[in-house]
Amino acid sequence: MSIRPVSIVGIGQVEVVKASPKRLRELGAMATRLAMADAGVEQVDALFAGNMLSDELQGQKHVAALIADQAGLAGVEALEVKAATATGAAALRMAYFAVASGEADLAIAVGVEKMSEGVPTPAMAKALDAEYELPQGATLISRNAELMRLYLERYQVPEEAFVNFAVNAHRNARHNPLALFRNKRVTARDVLASRLISPPLRLLDCAPICDGAAAVILAPRSEARAYSDQPVHILASSVATDRFRVQDRQDPLWLEAAYLSAQAAFRRANIHRNDVSLFEAHDAFSIMTCLLLEAVGYAKPGQGWRLAADDEIRLRGRVPISTLGGLKARGHPIGATALYQTCEIVLQLTERAGKSQVPNASIAMLQSVGGAASTVLTHLFGV
Amino acid sequence: MSIRPVSIVGIGQVEVVKASPKRLRELGAMATRLAMADAGVEQVDALFAGNMLSDELQGQKHVAALIADQAGLAGVEALEVKAATATGAAALRMAYFAVASGEADLAIAVGVEKMSEGVPTPAMAKALDAEYELPQGATLISRNAELMRLYLERYQVPEEAFVNFAVNAHRNARHNPLALFRNKRVTARDVLASRLISPPLRLLDCAPICDGAAAVILAPRSEARAYSDQPVHILASSVATDRFRVQDRQDPLWLEAAYLSAQAAFRRANIHRNDVSLFEAHDAFSIMTCLLLEAVGYAKPGQGWRLAADDEIRLRGRVPISTLGGLKARGHPIGATALYQTCEIVLQLTERAGKSQVPNASIAMLQSVGGAASTVLTHLFGV
Repeated sequence: MSIRPVSIVGIGQVEVVKASPKRLRELGAMATRLAMADAGVEQVDALFAGNMLSDELQGQKHVAALIADQAGLAGVEALEVKAATATGAAALRMAYFAVASGEADLAIAVGVEKMSEGVPTPAMAKALDAEYELPQGATLISRNAELMRLYLERYQVPEEAFVNFAVNAHRNARHNPLALFRNKRVTARDVLASRLISPPLRLLDCAPICDGAAAVILAPRSEARAYSDQPVHILASSVATDRFRVQDRQDPLWLEAAYLSAQAAFRRANIHRNDVSLFEAHDAFSIMTCLLLEAVGYAKPGQGWRLAADDEIRLRGRVPISTLGGLKARGHPIGATALYQTCEIVLQLTERAGKSQVPNASIAMLQSVGGAASTVLTHLFGV
Repeated sequence: MSIRPVSIVGIGQVEVVKASPKRLRELGAMATRLAMADAGVEQVDALFAGNMLSDELQGQKHVAALIADQAGLAGVEALEVKAATATGAAALRMAYFAVASGEADLAIAVGVEKMSEGVPTPAMAKALDAEYELPQGATLISRNAELMRLYLERYQVPEEAFVNFAVNAHRNARHNPLALFRNKRVTARDVLASRLISPPLRLLDCAPICDGAAAVILAPRSEARAYSDQPVHILASSVATDRFRVQDRQDPLWLEAAYLSAQAAFRRANIHRNDVSLFEAHDAFSIMTCLLLEAVGYAKPGQGWRLAADDEIRLRGRVPISTLGGLKARGHPIGATALYQTCEIVLQLTERAGKSQVPNASIAMLQSVGGAASTVLTHLFGV
């Protein structure tokens, strides 16, 4: 439990696009400056950057210092933090650490990914075990396809059980002016007619590859009003791991790291899952969303898909998810993803989500999945 | 300034070797378990891993969760943190954040690098600017060679000015049973006769490529005695950046990030640089050590080499450096380096450094350099 409470006092989001003309460092600096402008500050004490793929796609390490310089902040503390596909949430947690510990009074968490350069899939697969999984050709896509196949078999549910996850995300993205697929209508029929990527996973079960950057600025809760009329408070931040390989887990369909980090977060915030107004889940694949809903306790094992099928994940449902498009339809520029979600949560909790507004939103949950859920971060936010 | 003071209550070091038969994950897990045994604990709250090159050399990302699992800690919080060649110090700072913030009561910082697999030099060069420096063939070696050439020219000092940095490091390494070069005698003549790597840099001006892992366990200072009879306290932890590219700096021979982070650390610990009993510098290249001594204020610009020439860097000198071999002679397995140095500082401050003991050591400084000093971390320790 953190000693000093922490709030979000500024957000910055760059439009998600298939291929940005901006360079990685420019995208990161843009999100940084947008968040600083939102908080009305010209300087911060520390910058924590999240990026997963620049080693391979841009041939660049050391991106935190690079982004700091590009943003005109040379001199500032800058470090990079990683947790595979949950990297953006790791940057958020590190900025939270910095402010909660008293080491920084203003810290920025910025995430950036430029996936349009090079070939991202093999670089992303390094989130799995390079010795035991990659030699067999495993990727994050094939891993999720296996989980979905096992789920369909074990619980004897039809492929249609999952379609509403994608339909819901695309419906909500239409009200997010920064979403990659803001102009796309997607029906259940579209999902089922989409190309099989890795059976039974179809194209529209998967989040798209894209470019983007997003940032948030954190300050001590006691000083938050100096920067923002509507600060959003971080009620809990938590991380857990699981056995690294899915094969080593007792039940491949049970996400222990999601369960553990959610339970720890609920305990720290002293709330129940039913107090959550909206849940920004890691919907990189429909099956992952379904398993997260089960791990958090919104549905029993084998029943997560019903929340989608029964329309309980809509804006006015019991557990609204992907309220501004999610990874599926806003886009999933990996290192930036959890920071986009945090920005969206700030918009929801301050009643600025427009036509995607969840009524009376007061508490929001964010879950971020690293690799095959070997790492899961849970954050809770409130006003 | 951190709200909750933090101490080191356990250390673990794996022998540094040219090429280890152990895998990356095994090395990391070994250092982790050694540190846990030293602190007498079977569980920790969080593990922060530092590694620079596994993306390229092992084709592996997500190493924090991988090491946690290998160490038998699956379930625990695990995140990875990076700052190019200063990565080990970044892991230390993150573990410090975790304990200082109250989010963890026992946190491990573990660093690991296995450079014997694949070709490390191009991967290391990604710490420089991939767009403006790498296309010209720049590497960390060529960058440091340029700095040394400029230094020799500007200050009109002979090449011999630097030899004592290597001689001192190798002399001290002979008393470190875990050092790569513990059995090697190196004289001034050996240094000057060694192969020119990138003129005027010679082989013995450069730290070697090797494999290793080291870890420390942190706890709140108020609880440190429950784990250790001789806890070492972290008096300050600080990070600064500089303009990313050397070319963009007013003076390439002035390390602003080292200056800024040292000044911040002295201020937070409320000490003067002359209170420091020993200084574990980032002696990856002799010229870097020289410039760090100048940036911290131990010598005026152009005079840093005199501390070596005048034997002031010896164990009984004014500023003892590389007291158990330094990067140069203990070895520089990058992600692990600052954690080896932290372990050695613990040995020094608790009078366990054997024949390399600095008399009456009470305060120690660690500086860790990322890339071409675009990022520098300074840590201060005391008993």
